[in-house]
Amino acid sequence: MTKHFVSVLLTLLTLSLDPVHSAEQPNFVVIFVDDMGYGDLSCFGNPTIKTPIIDQMAANGQKWTNFYVAAPVCTPSRAGLMTGRLPIRSGMCSDRRRVLFPDSGGGLPASEITIADALKQLGYQTAAIGKWHLGFLPQFLPTHHGFDSYFGIPYSNDMDRVDKKTDYFKLAEAERFQAYNVPLMRDEKIVERPTDQRTITKRYTEEAVKKIHQLKDGPFFIYLAHNLPHIPLFRSTAFKHSSTNGIYGDVVQEIDWSVGQILQALQETGLTEKTLVVFTSDNGPWLKFKTHGGSAGLLRDGKGSTWEGGMREPTVISWPGKLKPGIVHELGSTLDLLPTFVSLAGGEIATDRTYDGYDLSDFLLGKSDTSPRKEMYYYHGQKLFAVRKGSYKAHFHTKTSYVMQKMAITHKPPLLYNLDDDPSEKYDIAKQHPDIVAQLTQLAKKHTAGIKPVVNQLEIPLKKGKVKHKRPE
Amino acid sequence: MTKHFVSVLLTLLTLSLDPVHSAEQPNFVVIFVDDMGYGDLSCFGNPTIKTPIIDQMAANGQKWTNFYVAAPVCTPSRAGLMTGRLPIRSGMCSDRRRVLFPDSGGGLPASEITIADALKQLGYQTAAIGKWHLGFLPQFLPTHHGFDSYFGIPYSNDMDRVDKKTDYFKLAEAERFQAYNVPLMRDEKIVERPTDQRTITKRYTEEAVKKIHQLKDGPFFIYLAHNLPHIPLFRSTAFKHSSTNGIYGDVVQEIDWSVGQILQALQETGLTEKTLVVFTSDNGPWLKFKTHGGSAGLLRDGKGSTWEGGMREPTVISWPGKLKPGIVHELGSTLDLLPTFVSLAGGEIATDRTYDGYDLSDFLLGKSDTSPRKEMYYYHGQKLFAVRKGSYKAHFHTKTSYVMQKMAITHKPPLLYNLDDDPSEKYDIAKQHPDIVAQLTQLAKKHTAGIKPVVNQLEIPLKKGKVKHKRPE
Repeated sequence: MTKHFVSVLLTLLTLSLDPVHSAEQPNFVVIFVDDMGYGDLSCFGNPTIKTPIIDQMAANGQKWTNFYVAAPVCTPSRAGLMTGRLPIRSGMCSDRRRVLFPDSGGGLPASEITIADALKQLGYQTAAIGKWHLGFLPQFLPTHHGFDSYFGIPYSNDMDRVDKKTDYFKLAEAERFQAYNVPLMRDEKIVERPTDQRTITKRYTEEAVKKIHQLKDGPFFIYLAHNLPHIPLFRSTAFKHSSTNGIYGDVVQEIDWSVGQILQALQETGLTEKTLVVFTSDNGPWLKFKTHGGSAGLLRDGKGSTWEGGMREPTVISWPGKLKPGIVHELGSTLDLLPTFVSLAGGEIATDRTYDGYDLSDFLLGKSDTSPRKEMYYYHGQKLFAVRKGSYKAHFHTKTSYVMQKMAITHKPPLLYNLDDDPSEKYDIAKQHPDIVAQLTQLAKKHTAGIKPVVNQLEIPLKKGKVKHKRPE
Repeated sequence: MTKHFVSVLLTLLTLSLDPVHSAEQPNFVVIFVDDMGYGDLSCFGNPTIKTPIIDQMAANGQKWTNFYVAAPVCTPSRAGLMTGRLPIRSGMCSDRRRVLFPDSGGGLPASEITIADALKQLGYQTAAIGKWHLGFLPQFLPTHHGFDSYFGIPYSNDMDRVDKKTDYFKLAEAERFQAYNVPLMRDEKIVERPTDQRTITKRYTEEAVKKIHQLKDGPFFIYLAHNLPHIPLFRSTAFKHSSTNGIYGDVVQEIDWSVGQILQALQETGLTEKTLVVFTSDNGPWLKFKTHGGSAGLLRDGKGSTWEGGMREPTVISWPGKLKPGIVHELGSTLDLLPTFVSLAGGEIATDRTYDGYDLSDFLLGKSDTSPRKEMYYYHGQKLFAVRKGSYKAHFHTKTSYVMQKMAITHKPPLLYNLDDDPSEKYDIAKQHPDIVAQLTQLAKKHTAGIKPVVNQLEIPLKKGKVKHKRPE
């Protein structure tokens, strides 16, 4: 399907909007951080890092303890958030290359409808700030995916490595940013290279604050995807040694400050009660980088793994006056943002494709006691590794995160955990519950049977020839 | 030193009290739970167990993230709390028997000054409710250690096991309490045997509420030491299946309710702003009991271990109107309660003995920016296993918790961790910091040299003959 056809389809949907509802369209701000772990915020139990602003946002809003991303690594996780569809459906995950690299020629297909596409058709102004990582060729950039503007880096902050031999920890901190020749783009132009990452959190924040003021007549959707705390770590001078946790703590504390700037800008523009703000992370902590990686708290493993630490994220949703404050134990996912936002904006999602996201709006607004999400599918590359339904999770395959490059282990029978009384996935109870194992196996089979093959975007080379199958990201 | 002499000494100290200060003596309530882990409360990051009341108490008060007990098992931990002195000084720890058992003839010596002794001399009324575990012979009971009244069990709720062969998990829940012939005492009399533990949290709570009403003209000190969530687990009918976390979650949620009852009783008697309430646990989670044990969150290991999970506890201190609410990252310990309470009550601690506790009152009241506690000593039995000073912790010996009965490992050179940027004690940095290792080793030597040998109370048999060296507790 072409982008043009999608536009026509969405315009038709928009025409059918209830005009009263339209007048109440809320703004949406998604703050998406990179590689932050489940245990890195004070309100999620970190004993050292100080995040008073996010803690307060959680106290005034909702702290979600069972909120998932669509994949345990960057590109597929972002594709899932942007489209409301598992990355397996858009070709944005691969068994051979975990993410897009500077030598990749693929990206998010034009036929995919992003949150920005959908909201734009519903009258929203849209802005993307920060890391994109859904393709860096012009046709894949945010401005071709429904965003009016873009300011950020097109892929990970550790790519375009100049000196590939020096151990990361041996790079001098002051010059570390020069070791990564990552471009900074405004819309479709490179405006700085290498990106001076030492001030990047500050500059993204300033851009977001500016956008809030510019777009204050709304409605708007701002997607602020911080580069950090993905390695290499950087923070502004003002945050050096602000934390006793070392540079990782400093970085998280600058992000906490950044959240405060966003909330303050909403306050100044009188938009606090008209804006739904989501804070979450793209995947678990990169444990291989030790104290430069975060902590998954009591969850097992981290980034790159389908154990909970890889895909369950510290999530706070705030919309003062609209959401009942509290801790939410129900299931949710970044996959749900698109259907939820479209619903709150008074639209309807396209009917020509399969969505993996659920509309959480009734639950968020207290019209329903439970989340419509009852299950979660955990993909490692293109392969379904695990399924959760209710309290139970079955692992068909497991692979530890980036700590060691181990091969995947296939489990026959699958491992079974009760995530409610065993959140750390310590006690396999498959033997005691063959019925539940059978149910989850059936669910996985049914799900997998519904997946249609598409072009794998991560394996398309930039130039003719073979793509090198790089592992790190 | 005899108890009589202590009394005289304390009376003399009381006479020198500032009468103005005396009129402002706050009440103290210590809620001490058993085997709860660092990760078992919502406000400490538990994703499933609901503890809204303790969370709110933390939001209105102080959540301490670096608060320690005096030992990783029951009896010595309690001896430390009660006396403000490491158990090695009172003979209340042993390399051969971890705690006191029903066949033990020892207990907390009369020469020790408990918090209750000290406060009683300063005009306080005192009540002990719950598990004691500092000796069950009459001379060791709470009523001989400064408490006006006592209602509770004298040792652990898993002792006096009738049927020693059946696996714990195979005991039918309804009759499980009858498998433990634990006595329930009022003052010095057994009033029930076996204790019906199914209602014990409820009954302790009712007793505490009654005491608050009885003693409301104050000042008072109430020590409420719950039996639970130490196995065997029990909860009232009202809390069955209240949690999706299983029976462990139910038990913790009943304790949360209990805290609410205490706070409500203080509200009803107009004592909220006149009462300092401390909530903490006696040691880390008993991991061996899997889903019937709790979680240490992101901390390593659990009960019985000198890794952080064994001795760092989920701690909340509340005193509305007096304490600045917030998250406290400074160091504190149950050892500090005695000096702090005595100071707040306008008294002074005895000068004839070594105290390991610090007076936290200036820090609590905001008169000082930092806690006077800068170090922590981690004992396993009678042996110093580890020392923390500031961010750094050196392990001279380690032993994993009750999961496996492994022998201790001696580390030469010691292991070194930075607890601030590595709270899970994953990355040994001894090689990079030989100077810090040397400093901590020196600190340990100096400390150990100051310990004087005393009679070991845990190894005294009840009757003549040899005490069997039981391991479990």
